[in-house]
Amino acid sequence: MTDIFAKHQGLREAYEGLTTASPRNPFEVVIERPISASVGIIEGRETLLFGTNNYLGLSQSKKAIEAAVETAETMGVGTTGSRIANGTFGLHRKLEAKLAEFFRRKHCMVFSTGYQANLGTISALVNKDDILLLDADSHASIYDGAKLSGAQVIRFRHNDPVDLEKRLARLKDHTGAKLIIAEGIYSMTGNVAPLDKFVDIKTRHGAYLMADEAHSFGVLGAHGRGVAEMQGCEDGIDFVVGTFSKSLGTVGGYCVTDHDGVDLMRLCSRPYMFTASLPPEIIAATMAALEDMQARPELRTKLQENAARLHAGLQKVGLKTGEHVSPVVAVTLETVDQAVGFWNALLENGVYVNLSLPPATPDNRPLLRCSVMAAHSPEEIDRAVAVFGEVAKHFGL
Amino acid sequence: MTDIFAKHQGLREAYEGLTTASPRNPFEVVIERPISASVGIIEGRETLLFGTNNYLGLSQSKKAIEAAVETAETMGVGTTGSRIANGTFGLHRKLEAKLAEFFRRKHCMVFSTGYQANLGTISALVNKDDILLLDADSHASIYDGAKLSGAQVIRFRHNDPVDLEKRLARLKDHTGAKLIIAEGIYSMTGNVAPLDKFVDIKTRHGAYLMADEAHSFGVLGAHGRGVAEMQGCEDGIDFVVGTFSKSLGTVGGYCVTDHDGVDLMRLCSRPYMFTASLPPEIIAATMAALEDMQARPELRTKLQENAARLHAGLQKVGLKTGEHVSPVVAVTLETVDQAVGFWNALLENGVYVNLSLPPATPDNRPLLRCSVMAAHSPEEIDRAVAVFGEVAKHFGL
Repeated sequence: MTDIFAKHQGLREAYEGLTTASPRNPFEVVIERPISASVGIIEGRETLLFGTNNYLGLSQSKKAIEAAVETAETMGVGTTGSRIANGTFGLHRKLEAKLAEFFRRKHCMVFSTGYQANLGTISALVNKDDILLLDADSHASIYDGAKLSGAQVIRFRHNDPVDLEKRLARLKDHTGAKLIIAEGIYSMTGNVAPLDKFVDIKTRHGAYLMADEAHSFGVLGAHGRGVAEMQGCEDGIDFVVGTFSKSLGTVGGYCVTDHDGVDLMRLCSRPYMFTASLPPEIIAATMAALEDMQARPELRTKLQENAARLHAGLQKVGLKTGEHVSPVVAVTLETVDQAVGFWNALLENGVYVNLSLPPATPDNRPLLRCSVMAAHSPEEIDRAVAVFGEVAKHFGL
Repeated sequence: MTDIFAKHQGLREAYEGLTTASPRNPFEVVIERPISASVGIIEGRETLLFGTNNYLGLSQSKKAIEAAVETAETMGVGTTGSRIANGTFGLHRKLEAKLAEFFRRKHCMVFSTGYQANLGTISALVNKDDILLLDADSHASIYDGAKLSGAQVIRFRHNDPVDLEKRLARLKDHTGAKLIIAEGIYSMTGNVAPLDKFVDIKTRHGAYLMADEAHSFGVLGAHGRGVAEMQGCEDGIDFVVGTFSKSLGTVGGYCVTDHDGVDLMRLCSRPYMFTASLPPEIIAATMAALEDMQARPELRTKLQENAARLHAGLQKVGLKTGEHVSPVVAVTLETVDQAVGFWNALLENGVYVNLSLPPATPDNRPLLRCSVMAAHSPEEIDRAVAVFGEVAKHFGL
């Protein structure tokens, strides 16, 4: 009998090496409970949270919490059904209408997770006769959606319009549809995509363009509509996908578009149809968080200020970060051992960030990935920077 | 430029035919709000809900609602992170421990949806070198997990141990792992799988066996552990997958097992790793619903009585149902037009059921799929049966 787990042997060895070298398992951190958006209890200690993607701090939005409470009390804790059967409550429709209005689009579909939003949109839009052009640094949910779709996948160099155009030019005789997918902000590095340039290219080459604004929704653009709004190219984006689990602080995903054809996605997108819809209290909390976000544009200003403060601070203590200011600030280190040691020391000194290791990282360099929040105070940022500085000194960096 | 939506033309024609023939779109029913587990407002009217999968009525569990409210108030409305980064709160671990204990298994992993539980378990367990043996009537999430895994898929005849064994016998020289997947109760028909016979076969042929107890968890077995418990063959099931969005009334999914190898699934199951974890209030509500279910075994007795009452009632008014009593009762009709007319008339007379149309149904026959609840009163069941009887008479059945 073939051991079904034998295939994981290589991973097991890498994992055991890592967990032997590290005083704690970096993939099994437990936040015993959150105290606020920026502080949680980890290993019994109050810890500054600098790796949560909770960009606007809205997981702790009073309005969202009130909406969740009121809705759970009046409607219960779940729908127990698919959106195409008994799982559409009035609230689901209302949230879709509000999101469509927010993005100034005709249509919105809400999915049960952001992961399923990418799977469901991609797998419904393209099939084996079509071609997907994916940024090489795309999120796993985009690659999984591609796999589920059966479409031919062509990767273009990360954020590289010239490489994308070269690859599209070679496809001019292809008869299927061509769909380019890029993210707004890339989650690991904070890099921003040149969506405006991609719009220009897709128009000239007769392709469609989908943008995953998971990390940029609520974060960039004058109204928080993301990178496309910031770059003034929203009209050229065919499909915008995103999530509620970052700037809105809840869970779920969406796709907005002006293409009327998406009405049929509700009847052929399997990750939309064959899953229970989001519970009413989550929908209500998401709607309240969206209203909160719209009512408080100062959260975005604060977020940018905080991003600049963290970025400048980390550079000042001599650490290597990305060039541009972004709410995602990735500190690049040289070796995995160094990164694991650094990450543990940060946590022991009360600062939680994300440890990102090769091969999951760009250029196969280990990263200490920080994400900043509007909810961070300047003092909290300065304290985190000070801890980074001390640990860097300790490691001779 | 190739129209990306052109591929949906066939579906569009079928859909437009259907929606032209039907006074309302059967896939766009809106429950304006639930009044109780068994009654919701649809089209402004109080409607009996006989198609929700809310088997124990726990979406309206007072304990679950209280837990959701208290947790939203103290912890906020989301974790904004993956389980392997900042998305594991103490609560997630606690729920996993409670589920493992409930199922008397060593390990439990909680996923953000039931759909992702199947995708995440299957795609992590098998790859292109392995073989999946799937019941031909498997749920979409099992087929999608299979596709994501890249494993070779062999379908065996629905609930047919002889056919399964024949196919396994042909694979005796295959060097990869073999994983058989069956469901406990099949969602469309209420059919129960012969898991005990599959255990016998998998043992003799050196295969693994996974059971998806989505519709049987909380419903069958003396303690609600599902078909495997009822048939006394739990020791032979390697992996049990299920969902919280039916008997527990919330959303999410799980995999329980005694195989220690699953610890690595947390580091290679993409649908587990690359998605935000469930919000704390959902985890707390799920845990409370599980406790509620364990504290009230009478809910299962009531459910069985109600299933028997509905089944007998529908047969008495001359409708064609499955042979066995099950909480899923499917009325088989001959033509799509008849089914669409019947379904509309039921709804107009205050009874909501699920309309299931070919090609999504077994044998390509249209179904009026009912699911019964512990929360239904005998009077509600009798009223639904009476409406079924009147409509059947009207249609000359």
